[in-house]
Amino acid sequence: MTWKLTKSELDNENLLTNESLFSLGNGYLGVRGNFEEGYDAAFKSIRGTYINAFHDETEISYGEKLYAFPEKQQKIVNILDGQTIEVYLDGERFDLFSGEVLAFERNLHMDKGFAERMIHWKSPNGKEVKLHFRRIVSFVTRELFAIDLKVEPISVIDEIKIVSTLAGDVKNFVDPNDPRISSGHAKRLEVADIKKEEHLSIIKNRTTGTKLEVACVSSSVIEASSFTCHTTQTNSSIKETYTACGTIRFTKYNVYTDTFRHGDTLIEEAIAIHRQIEGKNFADLLQAQQAYLDQFWKKADILIDGDTALQSGIRFNIYQLLQSVGKDSYSNISAKGLSGEGYEGHYFWDTEIYIFPVFLMTDAEIAKNLLLHRYSLLDSARKRAREMGHNKGALFPWRTITGPESSAFFPAGTAQYHISADIAYSYIQYYLVTKDEAFLKDNMAEVLFETARLWMDTGHMLDGQFRIDDVTGPDEYTCIVNNNYYTNVMAKHNLIWASKVYNLLEETEPVVLAKLVEQLDISQKEAGEWQEAGEKMYLPYDEQLKINAQDDTFLQKQRWVLENTPADKFPLLLNYHPLTLYRYQVCKQADTVLAHFLLEDEQDFETMKRSYDYYEEITTHDSSLSHCAFSIMASKLGYKEKAYDYFLETARLDLDNTHGNTKDGLHMANMGGTWLAIVYGFAGVRVKEDGLSLAPSLPEQWNSLEFKIQFRGRLLKVHLDRDSVTYLIIEGDGLEIRHFGEKVWLESGEEVTL
Amino acid sequence: MTWKLTKSELDNENLLTNESLFSLGNGYLGVRGNFEEGYDAAFKSIRGTYINAFHDETEISYGEKLYAFPEKQQKIVNILDGQTIEVYLDGERFDLFSGEVLAFERNLHMDKGFAERMIHWKSPNGKEVKLHFRRIVSFVTRELFAIDLKVEPISVIDEIKIVSTLAGDVKNFVDPNDPRISSGHAKRLEVADIKKEEHLSIIKNRTTGTKLEVACVSSSVIEASSFTCHTTQTNSSIKETYTACGTIRFTKYNVYTDTFRHGDTLIEEAIAIHRQIEGKNFADLLQAQQAYLDQFWKKADILIDGDTALQSGIRFNIYQLLQSVGKDSYSNISAKGLSGEGYEGHYFWDTEIYIFPVFLMTDAEIAKNLLLHRYSLLDSARKRAREMGHNKGALFPWRTITGPESSAFFPAGTAQYHISADIAYSYIQYYLVTKDEAFLKDNMAEVLFETARLWMDTGHMLDGQFRIDDVTGPDEYTCIVNNNYYTNVMAKHNLIWASKVYNLLEETEPVVLAKLVEQLDISQKEAGEWQEAGEKMYLPYDEQLKINAQDDTFLQKQRWVLENTPADKFPLLLNYHPLTLYRYQVCKQADTVLAHFLLEDEQDFETMKRSYDYYEEITTHDSSLSHCAFSIMASKLGYKEKAYDYFLETARLDLDNTHGNTKDGLHMANMGGTWLAIVYGFAGVRVKEDGLSLAPSLPEQWNSLEFKIQFRGRLLKVHLDRDSVTYLIIEGDGLEIRHFGEKVWLESGEEVTL
Repeated sequence: MTWKLTKSELDNENLLTNESLFSLGNGYLGVRGNFEEGYDAAFKSIRGTYINAFHDETEISYGEKLYAFPEKQQKIVNILDGQTIEVYLDGERFDLFSGEVLAFERNLHMDKGFAERMIHWKSPNGKEVKLHFRRIVSFVTRELFAIDLKVEPISVIDEIKIVSTLAGDVKNFVDPNDPRISSGHAKRLEVADIKKEEHLSIIKNRTTGTKLEVACVSSSVIEASSFTCHTTQTNSSIKETYTACGTIRFTKYNVYTDTFRHGDTLIEEAIAIHRQIEGKNFADLLQAQQAYLDQFWKKADILIDGDTALQSGIRFNIYQLLQSVGKDSYSNISAKGLSGEGYEGHYFWDTEIYIFPVFLMTDAEIAKNLLLHRYSLLDSARKRAREMGHNKGALFPWRTITGPESSAFFPAGTAQYHISADIAYSYIQYYLVTKDEAFLKDNMAEVLFETARLWMDTGHMLDGQFRIDDVTGPDEYTCIVNNNYYTNVMAKHNLIWASKVYNLLEETEPVVLAKLVEQLDISQKEAGEWQEAGEKMYLPYDEQLKINAQDDTFLQKQRWVLENTPADKFPLLLNYHPLTLYRYQVCKQADTVLAHFLLEDEQDFETMKRSYDYYEEITTHDSSLSHCAFSIMASKLGYKEKAYDYFLETARLDLDNTHGNTKDGLHMANMGGTWLAIVYGFAGVRVKEDGLSLAPSLPEQWNSLEFKIQFRGRLLKVHLDRDSVTYLIIEGDGLEIRHFGEKVWLESGEEVTL
Repeated sequence: MTWKLTKSELDNENLLTNESLFSLGNGYLGVRGNFEEGYDAAFKSIRGTYINAFHDETEISYGEKLYAFPEKQQKIVNILDGQTIEVYLDGERFDLFSGEVLAFERNLHMDKGFAERMIHWKSPNGKEVKLHFRRIVSFVTRELFAIDLKVEPISVIDEIKIVSTLAGDVKNFVDPNDPRISSGHAKRLEVADIKKEEHLSIIKNRTTGTKLEVACVSSSVIEASSFTCHTTQTNSSIKETYTACGTIRFTKYNVYTDTFRHGDTLIEEAIAIHRQIEGKNFADLLQAQQAYLDQFWKKADILIDGDTALQSGIRFNIYQLLQSVGKDSYSNISAKGLSGEGYEGHYFWDTEIYIFPVFLMTDAEIAKNLLLHRYSLLDSARKRAREMGHNKGALFPWRTITGPESSAFFPAGTAQYHISADIAYSYIQYYLVTKDEAFLKDNMAEVLFETARLWMDTGHMLDGQFRIDDVTGPDEYTCIVNNNYYTNVMAKHNLIWASKVYNLLEETEPVVLAKLVEQLDISQKEAGEWQEAGEKMYLPYDEQLKINAQDDTFLQKQRWVLENTPADKFPLLLNYHPLTLYRYQVCKQADTVLAHFLLEDEQDFETMKRSYDYYEEITTHDSSLSHCAFSIMASKLGYKEKAYDYFLETARLDLDNTHGNTKDGLHMANMGGTWLAIVYGFAGVRVKEDGLSLAPSLPEQWNSLEFKIQFRGRLLKVHLDRDSVTYLIIEGDGLEIRHFGEKVWLESGEEVTL
C-alpha cells in the first residue's frame, strides 16, 4: 500500500491539510484537493487552482520605503475554478457534513497519478447513494484537469441532478498575521470573456496588475439511461445542470491555457486541445498517465525494506516534487510547488540546494530546465545588481517568479546574497554530473562570470584576506552580518570555478570566450582576480572552539538556551522580534552545517564534527530546510542515530503536518531534502571533479535500501543490504566510482557487491 | 535688522520653503506661513495648521510583517484651516500671481512675535490697492491665532469684498517617494459639528482612527465706513463675506481647542476663550506678545558682534525652538516642530540631545516639561520592552507622540536603543543643572532604574566585559551592530548613574527608595549589577588606529571615498540601498564623535582627536544632526576654523534651505545644535558633578559674543571679547565655576574679566 495515500477525516483542520496532501499537478497546472461539492458552510477552505508562474503584481506598502526597495511583488494567482460539481438526490444536496456517512475514503495513487474519493452516503431524508470521484491532472496533456464521477443509487431515487460549475469569480487566500503567507491583495483576477460555444463553457480571466490572461475551457459528458441538460450563465460563471436517474457516469474536462504558453489565442488553443482529446475517455487518460509514471518511477523510485510508513513517505515526497516542478522555460519550482499559496508561488534558493539535485540525479532534462529558467532571469539579476549599487555582476533575487526581487523585508530577503552562489553551485554540479559542454559554453560560463563579478564588487581585500560584509546567510535568525561562513565558502567556490571555466574556455574554445568577453566587457585581469579572491577567501574559524564561526561576531553573542524556551514559543520567528533573535546565538536552520555538506573539502573532518556538535545545540529547525542538512552531515560524521532521527523529521513532515502549516502548501525543499538525506546522507553520494563517490551505510532500522541515479549517461542502481552494497549499471557504459574513497570499476550490466 | 526675517520671493519653490520659515507657533498651536488668499492654481502648497501632539493613528502596511512590528503609526494631523481670507476689488480677486505687484515684502518679527505681508498691487483691470496682513499665534493665549488685514485703496474702487473662510475639509500632505515624509493616509479628519452661533463660526472635526476632536471657533471684526455682511455655510465650511468701501480694517480671531487639553467640552471652552479676549483688539494682542518675548529674550538671546547674517540666523533658530516646544504635559517637541509635517510630528532623541539642553540652560521650566512628558511615556516604554522580549526595564520608542513605537523600519528605528540612554542622560543633566531633589525622587530615579534594567537585559558579560549586541547607533548608515561605541558609553553612564541614585536614595531617602523598590520589584542585587555592568562596559578601541571603533566590525569594512561620489548622489540614503551603505565605512552623522562630546571624560584627548580626524573623512552629514556635533568637538579639540565652518552649516540651514527640504518643516534639532555649537562649542560650557565649567574661545571672525545661561538658580552672563572673557552673575548667589579647568569665584553682581 506504499503507493497510495489514504485518508478519511472530515474535520476542518484535517481537511485543510488534506487539500495540500491530495493536490494534483504536473508542473504546469496544480489543483488543490478540495471537495467538488464543497464543505460545510462554517468550514474554511483554501480552494485553489494554479498555473506555475502565472502571477499578478501587487504594490508593496512600506511604512518607510528606502532606496531600491522593490515597489511591486509578484504573486501566484488562484485561477478559474473548474472543480465544482454538486449532486442533488430528489432535491436534497449531497454534502458529507449532513445526513449519514456510511463509508468515506480518499486516495492518492502515486503510481497511477490520480486521486479518488469513495463515498457511501445516506441523506437526511434517507436517500442512499454511492459516489466515486476520480480526478487527474495529466502529465501528458499538461493543460488538462479532468474529474470523473460515478453516482450509484442504493435506495430508490427518482431524480439525480448534477450541477457542474466553471467559476471565474475567484480570490487568493490571505492571512494578515503570518509573514509566511500573503497579507492582502486577495482579488487579482477579473473576468475578461465568458461564453458558451457549442458544448464548451469558456471563461477568460485577466489579472488586474500584469494583465496576463488565463482561460479555462470546460466540457462534460454524461452517461445515463436518460437525462436532460440546461445551462445557466452569469457574468462570472457557467453552470451546467444535468437531470437524470439510475446509475450515472459524469466526466468533466477542464483545459487551462495562459498568456505565457499560449499567447493571445489562449481560448483558441484550449479549444484545439479539447479537439485533440475528444476521442478519449477517462480510462484512456488514466492509461496514459500510468505509462508516464512507469517511466518516471523506473528511474526515481527509492525502495525501503523495513518501514512502510517511510516507504510511502519518500514516495509521496518524490511524487509531489514531480507534480510541482516546472518543465518549461517559463517556470521553476516554487516553495510550495503547485499545492498552495504559501510564499506566494515564489522561487527561492530551495530550488538549487534542495530540489535540483533530485532531478539532476534522476531526470537531467528537468534539472536542465531549472537551470535554463534561472538563465532566463540573468538580465533581471544584472539589473538588480545595478539597483543594489554594484557596477558589475548579477545579483539573483531572493524570491521571484519572472525575475524582479519580490522580497519586502531585505534583512532576510535581498541580503541573502548567497542565492547567487547557490545558483552557480547548481550549474557546477550539473556540469560535473552531465559534462554537458554545450551548456557550459552557452549558459554556464556567463552565469559563473556574472556571479563571480558580484562577489568581487561586494567583498574586499583586507590584510590579505577577501571578506564579504553585510549579507545574510541561510540562518534568518542572524541577519546582516560580516563574513558569514556559508556565504564566503560558497562565493569562494563560485569565484574559483568562474576562473576555472574562463581558463578552460581560453584553452579549448577561444572564440566562444572572446565573444563572451566582448559581450560582458570582461577586462583582462578579471579572471585572475576571481582566482585570487577565491583563494584568499576568509573563512571564519574560532581558535578556541576549533569550529567555523557562523560569522565574525556570532560566537561573541549570548547563547540561547533552547531547553528553557517553552514549547509554545516555537517557531521563534512568530514569538520574538528579529532583534531579539539576532542578539543571541540561535539558528533557524542549518547554516555552517549546510556549508560543510555542500563543500566538505574546505574543512577537516574534526572541525566539521565539532561545528556540528556546537550548532546542533542552538538550532531550532524552525525552517523546514534544516533537518535534512543535519541528517546528511550526521551520516557523514558517523552519527547514525541522529542521521536517522533527522531523516524521520523530513520524511513525513507534510504527511504528519509536523510544522502545522501544511494547509498553505507542501514543503517542497524538505521533500527534496528527504531524497538528499537518503542518497547524499545514508548512501554518501558526492559528485566532484574526480567523479562519483559513495560511502553507503544502511540505517539499522531497515533491511535494505535501493535507489537509482543518473551519471554521465549511465543509470546506476545502488542496493544497500545490512552487510553489503551492490552496484549495477543498468544503462550506459562502464564507470569508475569511489567507494569509501577506494576506486571501483563497474562494468555495464554486471553487479558488483562490496 | 537681525530681529527680522524678510523675504519677497513669489516663485513656488521659495514659497514652499517660506511657508516653513514664516510659520508661527507657541508650542501648542502652529500655523505655516501660507498666503491667506492662496497661490496661483498651478502652485503647490503645504497649507497647514497643527496642534502639538494632536494626531491620528494609521495602519502600517508591511510587505512582510514580523513579530512586534508596530501595527499602527501615529501621525500629526493638519487641522481646521482658519487662514483663508480673500479680497475682491470691484469683483476682481486679489492674487499676487496676476495683475502687477508694485511692492511686496513679508517679515517675521522675532522680537515682537508676529508675521506680516505688505503689498502694493495693481489688478489686471488697473485697480490699485495696498494690503497689510499681520498674523499672530499668541504665547499668552495659546489657543489663539489671529489675522489682521488692512486694505487701503489707492485708485478708485467702488466695492471691496472680503471673504473669510473657516474650512473643515482638510488633508495632510503626502509624498510616497521620500522616506522622511508620510506616504499616505492624507485624509484623517471628518467634520463632526458645524454651526454658526451669534457671530461665531464653529467647526468641530474628529480624527478617523483615534476619534480625537479638534474645534476651531472663529470670529471677525471689520472697521469700515459702511459695510454689509452675510454668511454661507456648507457641510464643511463657513464663509463670511463683507462688502465695504474705502479703507478697511479686518481682524479674524481663530481659537483652537482639542480633546487632550479641553476634553469633551472643547467647543464651549473655545467660546469661553473668545469671551476672555473680546475686549482686546489686535494691538493689545501684539503688546502682550511683545511683553512675553521681552522676558524670553532677556534670558535666551545670544549677541554676536561681527556678522549680522549669523546674528539673525541664531535668533531665528532660538525663536523657532520657542515657537515649537511643547509647554504642557501632553506634548514634547517634534522633529519639525509645528512648522510642517515631515517625520509626521513624531518626537525623537532630537529632543534630549539637541534641544533639551537649550531650554535647560535658558528656561528650566520648559526643560522640565520635556522630561515630564517622557516620564508620562514610561508605561508605554515598559510595555514596548516586553514586546521586544525584555523581562524587565523600559525601552523608549524611537519615534512616537503619545508612547507607542511609530517606527516602521526597525533597523534605523526601534534598533536605536540608545534613545533610552539619551533620555536618562537628559535627566542626569537636568539634575546636575538644577539639583532638583524632588524631581530626582519623583521621576528621575524611576526612569534611571528602568532604563538601566533595559541595558542589563539587552547586554551580557563576556570575558569580563559587558557587551551590547545588535543595536543601531546614531549613524543610520550602519545598522544593527555589536558594541556601538555611542550606545555602550551612553548605557554605561545610564547604568552607573542608576546605581549612584540608588545608593544616594538608600542613604538619604530610604522610605522613598523602599517604595520604589517595591513598586518596581527591584531585587537586592540589581543596583550592584548596574554598577558592575557600567564599570565593565566594553568600549571598542582600535589598537592600531588608536581611535574608538564605531562598533565591533566597522573598521574592517571598506572605506567609502566621499570625494569620488558625485554631488547628485547625496544624501546617500536617497540614492543607495541600505545594504550598500552598511557595507562601507561611511557615516550619515556624528556617532562616536557625538559620544565624545556628551561623555568627554571617557577617553583621553588624543584618542578623541584621532577619532575625530578619522570619522570626519567618512561622514556625509546627510543628517541635519551632524554638523553641530562636529562643530562642538572641533572647538574642544582646538580646530577653530572647522568649528566655525561647521557652525556656519548649522546656523542658516533652514534660512538658506541647504538640505533642500525645509518646505517639510524646520530642522529643530539643528536649531538646537546652533545654540549648542556656540555655548558648548565656542564657550566650552560643560555641566558635570563638580559643577559648571567653561573654556571660551571667540571665533576670529567675530568681535564679541554674549549669552546667558541659568545654573542652579543663577542667571550668568558670559561675554567673550577678542582678548578676554567677562562673567557676571545677574541673578542669584555667587558661584564657583571652572574656567579652563581653573576654579574661579563669581560674586553675584560683580563682573569678573579673565
